[in-house]
Amino acid sequence: MIKVFGHKAPDTDSTGSPIIWAWYLSEIRKTPAKALLQGEPNTEAAWLLSRWNIEKPELFSDVAAGDQCVIVDTNNPAELPASINEAEVIEIIDHHLLAGGIKTRLPINITIRPLACTATIMHDLIGEEDLARAPKEIKAAMLTCILSDTLEFRSPTTTPHDRFVAEKLAKELGLSIPAYAAEMFAAKSDVSAFSEAELLRMDSKEYELGGKQLRVSVLETTSPQTVLDRKAALIAAMPGVAKEDGADEVLLFVVDILREEATLLVPNDFVKTVAEKSFGANVSGDSVILPGIMSRKKQIIPALAV
Amino acid sequence: MIKVFGHKAPDTDSTGSPIIWAWYLSEIRKTPAKALLQGEPNTEAAWLLSRWNIEKPELFSDVAAGDQCVIVDTNNPAELPASINEAEVIEIIDHHLLAGGIKTRLPINITIRPLACTATIMHDLIGEEDLARAPKEIKAAMLTCILSDTLEFRSPTTTPHDRFVAEKLAKELGLSIPAYAAEMFAAKSDVSAFSEAELLRMDSKEYELGGKQLRVSVLETTSPQTVLDRKAALIAAMPGVAKEDGADEVLLFVVDILREEATLLVPNDFVKTVAEKSFGANVSGDSVILPGIMSRKKQIIPALAV
Repeated sequence: MIKVFGHKAPDTDSTGSPIIWAWYLSEIRKTPAKALLQGEPNTEAAWLLSRWNIEKPELFSDVAAGDQCVIVDTNNPAELPASINEAEVIEIIDHHLLAGGIKTRLPINITIRPLACTATIMHDLIGEEDLARAPKEIKAAMLTCILSDTLEFRSPTTTPHDRFVAEKLAKELGLSIPAYAAEMFAAKSDVSAFSEAELLRMDSKEYELGGKQLRVSVLETTSPQTVLDRKAALIAAMPGVAKEDGADEVLLFVVDILREEATLLVPNDFVKTVAEKSFGANVSGDSVILPGIMSRKKQIIPALAV
Repeated sequence: MIKVFGHKAPDTDSTGSPIIWAWYLSEIRKTPAKALLQGEPNTEAAWLLSRWNIEKPELFSDVAAGDQCVIVDTNNPAELPASINEAEVIEIIDHHLLAGGIKTRLPINITIRPLACTATIMHDLIGEEDLARAPKEIKAAMLTCILSDTLEFRSPTTTPHDRFVAEKLAKELGLSIPAYAAEMFAAKSDVSAFSEAELLRMDSKEYELGGKQLRVSVLETTSPQTVLDRKAALIAAMPGVAKEDGADEVLLFVVDILREEATLLVPNDFVKTVAEKSFGANVSGDSVILPGIMSRKKQIIPALAV
């Protein structure tokens, strides 16, 4: 049984893509495969599952030598199970920079594209003919991944092809994109059930900057005030989260999907300097608004400086 | 101007693929690109150029920061210019194992497929519609790369898709594959102009085994006796080549394309042990025949043991 999985903080693309590809491998290529998760899906990903009655993939913590694995939505060993280089990676499908740590014993299928979303790449790899055989929840997962990763085409990572594929899928599913995306963003924005530590880790990537290990966390929401009302508690939780995760600092960007801006929390002088050097921000107080900033991959990580 | 290049020992695929892709980028995608070579093309690759009146790509030795590069037919930093990680790699197209040393700053196009030949992957990426606009020398380069890497479909690396593409191209070009391949192999097998050191380096990859650095060299020929007549001189040249290249040992496999077997030269006890442990060979004397062995990638490298 081929194991298909994404990164350690399962968002919609990293939950939906394994489900799409496991369907394709099992049903079209007739090679039994199952989607797995390295952690609990985030609110939006959990909404995708319940909205379309998709069974939640099993959680797992590591792979073993001989396991056949397909890695999707990442190629970074830091975001993968500890024993990944002992397993047999048979395919990688991703839309992130090449991190450079995965090796394979033999040539395998690797498809990395500078598109907004892994599911868009899968759409192209599967092809129209086989996709026509997909049940509606597979097409819906694909659409939801694209709307999630592009923030309904607002993110600068959006390419015309992502948009084209999403609009085609919405039409086939008889969905209105604005109404469906609003439903999705509302689900994502209801974070009342989560502790501050959980919010800081919900959509987070590790990154090294000036010798410091950072957790670069993003919360995309249509209701930023709900999060910012908890600013003091979030800042108070940062040192504990950083320490537990072996990091030096946590950067939390609260992305306002509708206003297309991010608020960066500023707990200390280090983060203040980062905000100033990276985004030319003028910081006073414990947060700063960064107009137009929506994408960690395209706008935050490449800009980070100290 | 985008630079398109392959590995350090330009064989037919590593010479033809940059030419094909530079044509595609320049003429179809309208992004000016040129093919480059890291070294002199081997006999067969030189034959491809003269047979189809293709201008020999310029030689170069390193890349600079800011150079836009497309890497083809390798992804291994050891086979690439020293400053590759300072340049801007914008695309990788390859059919080898993931070596794990290349990193990119942003997401780029990476296409690795377990096919016999980089040119086959390019055929698929270009697509029928755009390929119809290719001049005959581009289609001929594609065909020649496939016949070279598959040893006219004899190598176990050959997939049905490589064969399908080659047969389609031959038909379009009005070529008989057996006649054309015979012409190509005859050109490749005429190695009279090369010194022993040149023969040992002509088609060679670095590989570590049991703490030793090996040069794993292959000479594919329809006239193995021409090479084996120089066996004593080749063995005598090995220590010098190894020393100059920072290696410990040279393994030379003389592949008989028509008989589908390799002769491994056995200069010393280390290579004797490698031959026995890797291929179960019974060695007496300074060479041993390995029946059925034709592919370094699929049969030699994965088997190497000591």
